[in-house]
Amino acid sequence: MIIALDAMGGDFAPEVTVAGAIEAVSEYDVHVILIGDTDKINARLQDRRYPAERISIVHSTQVAEMDEAPTTVLRKKKDSSIRRAIDLVKNGQADAAVSAGNSGVAMAMSLILLGKTEGIDRPAIATLMPSLSGHFVLIDAGANVDCKPQNLLEFAHMGDAYYRAMSNSPSPRIALLSIGEEDTKGNELTKEAFKLLKATKINFIGNIEGKDVFSGKADVIVCDGFIGNIVLKTSEGLADTIMKMLKFEIANIKTGKLGYLMIKPALRNFKKRTDYDEYGGAPLLGIKGTCIISHGRSSAKAIKHAIRVAAEMSRQHVHENIAATIKEIHQKGQGI
Amino acid sequence: MIIALDAMGGDFAPEVTVAGAIEAVSEYDVHVILIGDTDKINARLQDRRYPAERISIVHSTQVAEMDEAPTTVLRKKKDSSIRRAIDLVKNGQADAAVSAGNSGVAMAMSLILLGKTEGIDRPAIATLMPSLSGHFVLIDAGANVDCKPQNLLEFAHMGDAYYRAMSNSPSPRIALLSIGEEDTKGNELTKEAFKLLKATKINFIGNIEGKDVFSGKADVIVCDGFIGNIVLKTSEGLADTIMKMLKFEIANIKTGKLGYLMIKPALRNFKKRTDYDEYGGAPLLGIKGTCIISHGRSSAKAIKHAIRVAAEMSRQHVHENIAATIKEIHQKGQGI
Repeated sequence: MIIALDAMGGDFAPEVTVAGAIEAVSEYDVHVILIGDTDKINARLQDRRYPAERISIVHSTQVAEMDEAPTTVLRKKKDSSIRRAIDLVKNGQADAAVSAGNSGVAMAMSLILLGKTEGIDRPAIATLMPSLSGHFVLIDAGANVDCKPQNLLEFAHMGDAYYRAMSNSPSPRIALLSIGEEDTKGNELTKEAFKLLKATKINFIGNIEGKDVFSGKADVIVCDGFIGNIVLKTSEGLADTIMKMLKFEIANIKTGKLGYLMIKPALRNFKKRTDYDEYGGAPLLGIKGTCIISHGRSSAKAIKHAIRVAAEMSRQHVHENIAATIKEIHQKGQGI
Repeated sequence: MIIALDAMGGDFAPEVTVAGAIEAVSEYDVHVILIGDTDKINARLQDRRYPAERISIVHSTQVAEMDEAPTTVLRKKKDSSIRRAIDLVKNGQADAAVSAGNSGVAMAMSLILLGKTEGIDRPAIATLMPSLSGHFVLIDAGANVDCKPQNLLEFAHMGDAYYRAMSNSPSPRIALLSIGEEDTKGNELTKEAFKLLKATKINFIGNIEGKDVFSGKADVIVCDGFIGNIVLKTSEGLADTIMKMLKFEIANIKTGKLGYLMIKPALRNFKKRTDYDEYGGAPLLGIKGTCIISHGRSSAKAIKHAIRVAAEMSRQHVHENIAATIKEIHQKGQGI
């Protein structure tokens, strides 16, 4: 698999992007094309040991800034590293693209350069998150702030195909995020979406409440991108707050210092299990190609895992599977 | 202050409601009227020590079940304990009502029997939650699933008045829950609400992202009741999941058992700081009276604190203050 990495994208680029690429090619069966300033990239590659035949560089002279509007980048930065990365996917020179840069730009660029999957109205971000029993996919995690019921139906089908491909689970449990389990509970959007989902052949297990998001009851949780983004970020913030509060309380008692040392390996294991870095990034589903969008604050490890996810998605033909699923649904006149 | 307590409402009633009332009258300067089955209540009062002059009983023969529709209860259960509790507030025989029973019924009953505050379109639930630096109010936590921008403006004013009364803070920081800090970020609802909030005289600090909900940046966080309910329940579920994961990881390492014992007092302090029971319940704001709605699974401690909050709200004239604020805004033609 050949992965095009936006080497200039992210808060700590190109330091961590190059380091992540080195880790990825050393560990996985992938080739990484680093796109960006050749001099800067080479400065970080030299003196490092890695299978050199698995990394190549494509020079680009521009960078999309973190706060730049997608329209501006599209118009004025034809040679930006993110654009060049997605162009490589479009031209078939790479199997997938990864960027930790401006996520709005990455999304807009993927949409415009690669195009939407036939029959999909709104591509969506599918984020993998840890649960009590394993992990689940939250879709849409922020691509679409105002949605119609049909969009949530699309998200469910895309999440289903994504989860099946990535987990080898034949029939993922799909749930709709709402404020009560009964089908009569919800807002106008979810009540309509519930009916549409009920009529599909996916394993729709009904509404799921906030309290069960992390309990492991569902494999795919469907919601609009406004709520998805808020759930995602609130959860990250709360986890952070809880750990800070716990450390504060532990530091505040006599036996805390010693106790902390004794449970430290457990905290490390907990962190590993819930660490964003292990998940790497989230794909934009519903486009003709594979593009992984990573946090701006990604570490080298996060970049490595994003490359792993990108390769795995290409290997499993996720976007082709989604296209086939949507085509079949349209042909049978089911739902969308 | 005289508090009317729905003694039959809640998963563990009348056991915990009576116990909570006893704790409250022993600790605070309140009188509690227990409404429900006199025999059952008396059975739990006997042999207990408490200032007997501070508890009285009003007999009622019916109970609103947890899954009963508000309309059914309104039509068929004129002698339900929740209805009688709110009737006492309406007739001026009690200053406030508390119920851990069917929350939909409690809301509908408050609305219909007490009526909405003049100028308020949608009463809302204001829930107090712990943050890194203290606590904050989330409004609306679940009363209104589909909202207009004007409703969010009302929530902001009500949350402001509530927070001022309960904390003695002269100018609480009010924020709008959204997906980015810039005023251009959000969905159609929040973008419109942002403009309305900007034009008020309250201390509107702009949008707040999910990651900052628990960071202590805002005193009052405004959102529609669908998102509020999901944020509230997701947070409760996540906190629970994190504690389970941590305990699992601690039990899984050699030094875990001893380390756990050493940090146990810290865990207890953490639990106390974040314990729902300490917050007791959430008021429905925007009605002509005070009604506190508690979790069905409330403990005696939660009931005690709900009675405390009810008394404090009456003492601080929160609903009168809200009425005055809304009246002033309407007179000045500001906003709503």
